[in-house]
Amino acid sequence: MRRRNVKHAKERLSLHPELVVDNPFLYKGIWAKLFGNNHPIYLEIGMGKGKFIIEHALKHPEINYIGLEKFDSVLVQAVDKAKSLKLNNLKLIHLEAEKINDVFAEKEINKIFLNFSDPWPKNRHEKRRLTYHTYLALYEKILNGIVEMKTDNQSLFEYSLKSFNNEHWTFLDVSLDLHHRDLPNEEKIITTEYEEKFIQKGNNIYYLEVKK
Amino acid sequence: MRRRNVKHAKERLSLHPELVVDNPFLYKGIWAKLFGNNHPIYLEIGMGKGKFIIEHALKHPEINYIGLEKFDSVLVQAVDKAKSLKLNNLKLIHLEAEKINDVFAEKEINKIFLNFSDPWPKNRHEKRRLTYHTYLALYEKILNGIVEMKTDNQSLFEYSLKSFNNEHWTFLDVSLDLHHRDLPNEEKIITTEYEEKFIQKGNNIYYLEVKK
Repeated sequence: MRRRNVKHAKERLSLHPELVVDNPFLYKGIWAKLFGNNHPIYLEIGMGKGKFIIEHALKHPEINYIGLEKFDSVLVQAVDKAKSLKLNNLKLIHLEAEKINDVFAEKEINKIFLNFSDPWPKNRHEKRRLTYHTYLALYEKILNGIVEMKTDNQSLFEYSLKSFNNEHWTFLDVSLDLHHRDLPNEEKIITTEYEEKFIQKGNNIYYLEVKK
Repeated sequence: MRRRNVKHAKERLSLHPELVVDNPFLYKGIWAKLFGNNHPIYLEIGMGKGKFIIEHALKHPEINYIGLEKFDSVLVQAVDKAKSLKLNNLKLIHLEAEKINDVFAEKEINKIFLNFSDPWPKNRHEKRRLTYHTYLALYEKILNGIVEMKTDNQSLFEYSLKSFNNEHWTFLDVSLDLHHRDLPNEEKIITTEYEEKFIQKGNNIYYLEVKK
């Protein structure tokens, strides 16, 4: 994703403490308390500008959503979208994915979304891919549920199929062209900003749903 | 594949006993004796008109190849291609895939090729797909090695990814566009008749390599 340099991003995030959790490490194991209910918690890792998670949160008040984004300049744009919506079931966190085990307790998360993650195409960057086996181990620890992955990147998808399979995750659903099939579950067609542009070009989206 | 009605197919097959094994059940566990050596044995299930397996056999005299085909009218066409080549490392069998455990002993086969198998798209025909779990169990029994699958059929490929995964096979290689990648192994580009036509249309071929 192209990132604009956003002025005073940190300060702008701090203006919305009801939405952006300043110190997420404090809530490890007690996210339900922060939300004030025991609804399932769904986590998007790398939520970008937030379209996907905000639409999910609007559609499913019975589920709590947490969006992770490591770039504050991008997170600011999600905050701008969400701040007027007063969503009690949405929290955003400025955090790197590798720290999720410090922020969530075992089995505290019921679903993880990986949407259009950076493909890191060079072999020497393999460890940075969000489906590298060390990341899958992090997910397994906090997850009591499934991972849903979407990408337009063929190489990342091939890599991820191998990685999830070889780490013994069970494939629940695979689609090599998500937007041109009969969807059993309408929810899946909530898109990201990036996905919208990509679909308009007529390209296909790869989809994978797995559980441990 | 479109099948022509071939006259006297059975009789024509019987004219080439050095190539077409008339009673394959006799050789269970002793295929090495029939070939006269201990080379690895590679099996193509549903070899159709034979281009793929014949080219492999020509290129790799150090490997023994067995082609299975259930339609004698198709097998005849493979025989017509191979009969003048005097390949000591190729045998063809008129057989249904579900009988392979009656023809091969445990671990007697070192590789299985599934090329452009019938996709059987209707759900009620799922059991007929060559990657249905009952078939995978047959393969596992006779196999000491890997399965290589190629198809142009998106649904069959999605199904097969799930099926191999859910039966706990290890993914060694996955390609969603076999003919447009850097091939580490030149051998993979030996094509079938069907594949050639499909490539010329500019469509992509799906590829999967797995082991148990």
